[in-house]
Amino acid sequence: MSATETFKDYLARRAAEVNQWLDRLVPSETTPPEQLHRAMRYSLLAGGKRLRPSLTLAAGEAVGADTDDLMPAACAIEMIHTYSLIHDDLPAMDNDDLRRGRPTCHKAFGEAVAILAGDALLTQAFRVLSADAPHRDAERQVQVIREIATAAGTVDALIGGQIADIESEGKNVDASTLEYIHRSKTGAMITAPVVVGGIIAGASEEQIDKLRGYGQRIGLAFQIADDILDVTSTSEQLGKTPGKDQAANKATYPAIHGIATSQARARQLVEEAVEIVSGLHLKTHMLEEIARFIIARSS
Amino acid sequence: MSATETFKDYLARRAAEVNQWLDRLVPSETTPPEQLHRAMRYSLLAGGKRLRPSLTLAAGEAVGADTDDLMPAACAIEMIHTYSLIHDDLPAMDNDDLRRGRPTCHKAFGEAVAILAGDALLTQAFRVLSADAPHRDAERQVQVIREIATAAGTVDALIGGQIADIESEGKNVDASTLEYIHRSKTGAMITAPVVVGGIIAGASEEQIDKLRGYGQRIGLAFQIADDILDVTSTSEQLGKTPGKDQAANKATYPAIHGIATSQARARQLVEEAVEIVSGLHLKTHMLEEIARFIIARSS
Repeated sequence: MSATETFKDYLARRAAEVNQWLDRLVPSETTPPEQLHRAMRYSLLAGGKRLRPSLTLAAGEAVGADTDDLMPAACAIEMIHTYSLIHDDLPAMDNDDLRRGRPTCHKAFGEAVAILAGDALLTQAFRVLSADAPHRDAERQVQVIREIATAAGTVDALIGGQIADIESEGKNVDASTLEYIHRSKTGAMITAPVVVGGIIAGASEEQIDKLRGYGQRIGLAFQIADDILDVTSTSEQLGKTPGKDQAANKATYPAIHGIATSQARARQLVEEAVEIVSGLHLKTHMLEEIARFIIARSS
Repeated sequence: MSATETFKDYLARRAAEVNQWLDRLVPSETTPPEQLHRAMRYSLLAGGKRLRPSLTLAAGEAVGADTDDLMPAACAIEMIHTYSLIHDDLPAMDNDDLRRGRPTCHKAFGEAVAILAGDALLTQAFRVLSADAPHRDAERQVQVIREIATAAGTVDALIGGQIADIESEGKNVDASTLEYIHRSKTGAMITAPVVVGGIIAGASEEQIDKLRGYGQRIGLAFQIADDILDVTSTSEQLGKTPGKDQAANKATYPAIHGIATSQARARQLVEEAVEIVSGLHLKTHMLEEIARFIIARSS
């Protein structure tokens, strides 16, 4: 970030870089099967803040990795995030029509294509992560794949959180169950990008532990902020249908704890996260900025 | 295979070994989220010939690998195969009620759980492939992951074949399109297990090429045989609804070429496959037996 650049400008610049890489890392719309590749690209290149890739870049660069070495993993993580959104939006799941201000993938391409586009983005992520790159350290490559596959899995992870979220609909969910859902569904795939940046940069185990602690806290803070925004925002601001969680009788942080307590908890988590990474004594300025940014709109 | 053991007994014994490993390589039914793990295990442990894992074992052992080093990849491939069946059976896709003689995953657990169980098996496959194993060669591990992610992908691969298959329904499909569908939808994920066995065993590039040539031929032969069986079998023999392809007006090999020509083509492919692997001058007896077995019921 240059002296005159605001943090928002910085994030937008990183997002543009990520988008260029994403564009190259999935097959073009003229490669058969064209319709499927169109659907993948429609959802993947629909904008979005590219928070997860930015975390990989910020963590990896703080420990000293080159941006080019971080980008494939950063993009693979965004592919997995996008696949999870496509599948979550399906009629059998959350049945959402709107995502990032546009019709959801199944609304635009039909259910069969949307299911397969999600499958394909998940698969392509692992193809990108295992790409032939002679200068890459294979040991680290395997470690990165393991970290991501675990975070995207079922046990305290992405898919486990999604099923728990679905199962909790219309039920009285206690605070600890809600925290489990948030930690799994959102937290795991926000923590992993941070850790992965560290692994690629060759971080020590102690450094990885600190990055993980940071990631876990901002992951939960992010979901609390998201819950708060769902209550307080309009459709235009969100780019998706607001109040959906309430309408679906989904458990949210503000529903259980109230908005003020939720905001205070999010702030506390961000403070803890900032303190942890500042203990690395590295150039973690960007990680600190991202942590604060995550709750900025909700506090 | 011992002197008194028939080939069918041999296959059944290998399948039982594979099942034991599969049982250990996915979370138990008492691990939360229980319902999701039940659905994964319901589909994964529903029987089946375990053809793909057997190919990895046969190819790897021919080149000199230990069974224990081959099993994780063999099982990961079966997980991916199972995920693709679960998603193909969904109402938005082939809308099948019966699979391996039992209700399909979405019939037994509902659509949301079935979609997520498929996602989870695909993800777990990559977790198993990237598992921490100090004695494993990380370079080879990455190569195996790349081979499998490519075969399960969109370009001349599993998902590409499935979408082409769906798109071809009710259309007049020519012979070359049909061969593309077969090569992609079934062939890629029959070739990959053979190649992966070779990679784990440390096969040379020349050996890998031969294994790939073998795999491509038996992959196509397998799908032709499957098409023939769909026409000639009863529901009880198939464990799934027969005549589905015809009913859905799906292109099949016998529909385009007739049964006799289809049988001749399958036999020819198997002969070529056997000739290729016998050129390896290794203990490829099992690969040859599997090739012949693949078309046995249809010829």
